[in-house]
Amino acid sequence: MGTLGNREVHNHNHDDNDRDDHVHGVNFSIQRGFGTKLKSGLKETLFPDDPFRQFKNEEKTTRRILKGVQYFIPIFEWLPTYNWRLFISDLIAGLTISSLAIPQGISYAKLADLPPLIGLYSSFVPPLVYAIFGSSRHMAVGTIAAASLLIGQTIQTVADPKEDPTLYLHLIFTTTFITGIFQACLGIFRLGILVDFFSHSTINGFMGGTAVILILQQLKGVFGMVHFSQKTNLVEVIKSIVNNRHEIRWEPTVLGVVFLAFLQFTRHLRNKNPKLFWVQAIGPMVTVVVAGVFTYLVKGQKHGIQIVGHLDKGLNPLSIHYLNFDGKYLSAVLQAGLITGVLSLAEGIAIGRSFAVADNTPHDGNKEMVAFGLMNLFGSFTSCYLTSGPFSKTAVNYNAGCKTAMANVIQAIIMALTLQFLAPLFGYTPLVALSVIIISAMLGLIHYEEVIHLYKVDKFDFVICMAAFLGVVFISMDVGLMISVGLGVLRALLYVARPLPCKLGKLPEVGLYRDTEQYNVSTFPGVLIIQLGSPVYFANSNYVKERIMRYVRSEQVSTGDNVEHIILDLSGVTSIDSTAIKALDEIVKVLTKNAIKILFVNPRLEVLEKLLASKFVDKLGKETFYLTLDDAVMASQYSLRSAKGNGEDSIA
Amino acid sequence: MGTLGNREVHNHNHDDNDRDDHVHGVNFSIQRGFGTKLKSGLKETLFPDDPFRQFKNEEKTTRRILKGVQYFIPIFEWLPTYNWRLFISDLIAGLTISSLAIPQGISYAKLADLPPLIGLYSSFVPPLVYAIFGSSRHMAVGTIAAASLLIGQTIQTVADPKEDPTLYLHLIFTTTFITGIFQACLGIFRLGILVDFFSHSTINGFMGGTAVILILQQLKGVFGMVHFSQKTNLVEVIKSIVNNRHEIRWEPTVLGVVFLAFLQFTRHLRNKNPKLFWVQAIGPMVTVVVAGVFTYLVKGQKHGIQIVGHLDKGLNPLSIHYLNFDGKYLSAVLQAGLITGVLSLAEGIAIGRSFAVADNTPHDGNKEMVAFGLMNLFGSFTSCYLTSGPFSKTAVNYNAGCKTAMANVIQAIIMALTLQFLAPLFGYTPLVALSVIIISAMLGLIHYEEVIHLYKVDKFDFVICMAAFLGVVFISMDVGLMISVGLGVLRALLYVARPLPCKLGKLPEVGLYRDTEQYNVSTFPGVLIIQLGSPVYFANSNYVKERIMRYVRSEQVSTGDNVEHIILDLSGVTSIDSTAIKALDEIVKVLTKNAIKILFVNPRLEVLEKLLASKFVDKLGKETFYLTLDDAVMASQYSLRSAKGNGEDSIA
Repeated sequence: MGTLGNREVHNHNHDDNDRDDHVHGVNFSIQRGFGTKLKSGLKETLFPDDPFRQFKNEEKTTRRILKGVQYFIPIFEWLPTYNWRLFISDLIAGLTISSLAIPQGISYAKLADLPPLIGLYSSFVPPLVYAIFGSSRHMAVGTIAAASLLIGQTIQTVADPKEDPTLYLHLIFTTTFITGIFQACLGIFRLGILVDFFSHSTINGFMGGTAVILILQQLKGVFGMVHFSQKTNLVEVIKSIVNNRHEIRWEPTVLGVVFLAFLQFTRHLRNKNPKLFWVQAIGPMVTVVVAGVFTYLVKGQKHGIQIVGHLDKGLNPLSIHYLNFDGKYLSAVLQAGLITGVLSLAEGIAIGRSFAVADNTPHDGNKEMVAFGLMNLFGSFTSCYLTSGPFSKTAVNYNAGCKTAMANVIQAIIMALTLQFLAPLFGYTPLVALSVIIISAMLGLIHYEEVIHLYKVDKFDFVICMAAFLGVVFISMDVGLMISVGLGVLRALLYVARPLPCKLGKLPEVGLYRDTEQYNVSTFPGVLIIQLGSPVYFANSNYVKERIMRYVRSEQVSTGDNVEHIILDLSGVTSIDSTAIKALDEIVKVLTKNAIKILFVNPRLEVLEKLLASKFVDKLGKETFYLTLDDAVMASQYSLRSAKGNGEDSIA
Repeated sequence: MGTLGNREVHNHNHDDNDRDDHVHGVNFSIQRGFGTKLKSGLKETLFPDDPFRQFKNEEKTTRRILKGVQYFIPIFEWLPTYNWRLFISDLIAGLTISSLAIPQGISYAKLADLPPLIGLYSSFVPPLVYAIFGSSRHMAVGTIAAASLLIGQTIQTVADPKEDPTLYLHLIFTTTFITGIFQACLGIFRLGILVDFFSHSTINGFMGGTAVILILQQLKGVFGMVHFSQKTNLVEVIKSIVNNRHEIRWEPTVLGVVFLAFLQFTRHLRNKNPKLFWVQAIGPMVTVVVAGVFTYLVKGQKHGIQIVGHLDKGLNPLSIHYLNFDGKYLSAVLQAGLITGVLSLAEGIAIGRSFAVADNTPHDGNKEMVAFGLMNLFGSFTSCYLTSGPFSKTAVNYNAGCKTAMANVIQAIIMALTLQFLAPLFGYTPLVALSVIIISAMLGLIHYEEVIHLYKVDKFDFVICMAAFLGVVFISMDVGLMISVGLGVLRALLYVARPLPCKLGKLPEVGLYRDTEQYNVSTFPGVLIIQLGSPVYFANSNYVKERIMRYVRSEQVSTGDNVEHIILDLSGVTSIDSTAIKALDEIVKVLTKNAIKILFVNPRLEVLEKLLASKFVDKLGKETFYLTLDDAVMASQYSLRSAKGNGEDSIA
């Protein structure tokens, strides 16, 4: 107790000071007005990245306007300094992603039960729009498999793509329109916070699950089957294959296995030597061309090898007059639009962010949302359906060395040329080639090693991930997604409901207070120091109360000493609400009845403001609040000693 | 810089130590197994109050069983030591609450469109059940106004109480059964956590709003009107009064005003002198008797004063065979059962808890739920409907000096006698008397001064409260409740999405680090110290990243110094997930690219475990983790100095 004794004089003085003017005590004088608090709250919630910094501090108005325009329309930022060297890089990247865009466009359109041309159209207009408004330098715009399947499934509940293909197509355009409006609004109102609720674990599980069901779906093409389940879940698909097993043809199956082996080999090459990324990138195009020529030569159609069929020449026709807001279909359209909207944002923003981090280039989630929204909006006017920044295509773009969004312009130009001159040729593509392209892409999305990592690091994240995976595989895509996001939200709520408090003791070596469970610290008889977790809210105020009482009981059981002082360390509490203040009031009452004195240490600004406003501080007295744990411990030691009088000198 | 210079030697040594064996550094050796973590997580989530402590530590098996039985069936705890003195207190309290129970029983039953006798039955069986299983000593069991109205409204969507009163009644019993099962399950599975999501602000606003619409509803009785709106919202009720204004009779109106004045006067008396609580308590009974005799004498029915009508003698008939689980009605029954179940729990538990705190007597939320569940379960078998612990009745019971749950037994006995012998007499009660009893009770539930308090302390709580109030008054009870709870959940989620970090500096007087906004602290050039808020989760990992980058930028703008070290204080972070660890990884990457070194200080046990499991610590090196801010600051100062070499001696 030597150290304590030494400090006693100092602290005793300090204590007196506290009562006088709080020079070294808690600063009670800082209180912000409502306006300041509201502004700071809104800023932290909606503008945490201070997005307008680039132009709001400019002195000259003209420069300010220029910077502002550059901020909102990023093409003005990079185009003026664009040069030949950058263009060569972008040209190569653009050519590479185009070779991926054509087969993927056709394949994914088929996933959504759309005419293959729609898939090609979707790689023409949206990349152009993104090139103007997008902030990421690596994003390659295109359709995505998961959303294609999901959008198709949802719209099929109100319109049959076979019986009324026109209505179905128009509803898909309308869905894309809704998605565009929704995404742009999210960006404009800075609600990127919504996308944050799709955790890495959810996206991982969802992607894995989607990959599995997509692969299962493609067995139809590989086996050359005519009848197949419309449902996507594992059980239905397997049933459907078993029931229609007589339809399986060996010809497409052999072709499929060969090309799948080829595609997997290109992936293997790329993994061995990242410089060979282009082999993997042109793999799908090679598959389409070789399979098409082969099928044409051997008259494959006679041997059960189905082909895409006739494709018209020509660029995207306008579709703005086809948008259909009939009340009958609106709820399905809204549902599909909103879910796929958030989903494609989550994918596009996650991939954009990760490459921006890798390359240390700028990336602004809210601006990306606006760009995605605009590209879907213009897309819905020009016969495109939902586009985003797919993982695989963007990764290829990055590896191909793209420097700016110009790569998307190149992609659009190549797509325009293809549509204008080459489209009919792609009509000879065998369906089995499209199937293996999808299967190969999907095999790359199953990251089982990530799942093992999650299992090791965080069991709850593992559960969230598996819920998405199993939900998608065994129930349906939207249910799986919702269960997983729901679990994530539940976890966040549970966190708020049970903020871990801990008991502190003093680490003699450094003179600071640390968790008794974590470090070998010394405690003070009769004094219980508890660090509260954050926040202290309505959802946990009762828990905090119970937990403190439990600490008191267990302290009395384990040490045999009666607790006479409780010191609550509020350093980590960043927020409190009125229900919790009422609970603190109750705690004080109960403790007082049990002859336990309570002291508070280091309330943070936001917490102190509320404690002052609610008169909690006035009721307890400012002398109950200490700036440091040392001060509070000294104060309680001192009062213990004076209470016990001189009779127990041994303590001193 | 004198102090810093003095400590330098010590810290330098310390730093070396760190790299060797971390004697004074972060303790990396404590890692708990999965089982331990799961157990501790479950315990904190479901058993924070350690409920079985009363018996699990007993040595002898017999004592353990005895204590266990006493724990689960509290009557065995207090009955063996029950004595005459306690009984006298309970008798007085029991008589007082009975005098309230009869008029309230009849009135509230009418709110639910039920025969008045059901209300009286509900004050006989449930109090007996509660006396056996209830843990609160002050609870007075009875029907509650808000839930009565809500249950009636919901069941009326599937069964009309006028056209098919039998079906309606049976569905109400079924609803009560569902409520009972649900409440008991919540208690058994220790999901009291659900009730925690009804914040004080929500309950306050909901009560106020319900009081307003109940008062409006009672205008029917006061004005003696025959036609009245079935809807409860303000607009409909006022429309209905205006449209049927020719039905207004002066006789009941005068009677109503007189008795309302009387009841308000008794409340005024009690407020002036709390010892006169009994005047207020017997007020409703006096009103019923006097109004009944008066109406009988003046033949009031001929003057438009409607009476309750014929009431049968006799105790509760069995109703277990009436429970109706027909699929047609099940969804309405489930909806009514679950919402009123949670609602009545929220009311009953809140009131029980507040009196337990005031009196320092035990109160166990989960046990209360089981008791409430059992009393509704048995109630549904014996012609009772939903009961709980109403605010007003429990307050009267407390003021009347009740000591144990015996007061509820007395209430049950008096109710049995009433049912057996006096029931027909209460048939003469004029409806206007019941209306003023409800109005008077409801006026006591509007706590506008609480709302003002909320406005002052916490604007968000104020919004939550007003949402409940306005939602109930202008839309409907369940919508108002759900909006308000939804806002509360949203707030909790927003909290998780935006955990306030702050910038720290050193307070020279005490040598500790505090918020730069809150205290006048000194900072270190080139070193940025940030305290992270808790938790660091998927929902905020991107925010945390943006916020740190913003701190770096604003530091460079405000001081002109380049930030070379960032110290993240993790003391307040009680939880982290895998998405957030990925984000930390990204932060480190970005900072490293900008030539900024990052140091971590004092990770808590739960956080450290995950950082270790994810290899984050291995990747960065244990020397990046410090136990104290001082150590981290010294380390960064030292490295700054060595980097700059001897050329800049001025710093040393």
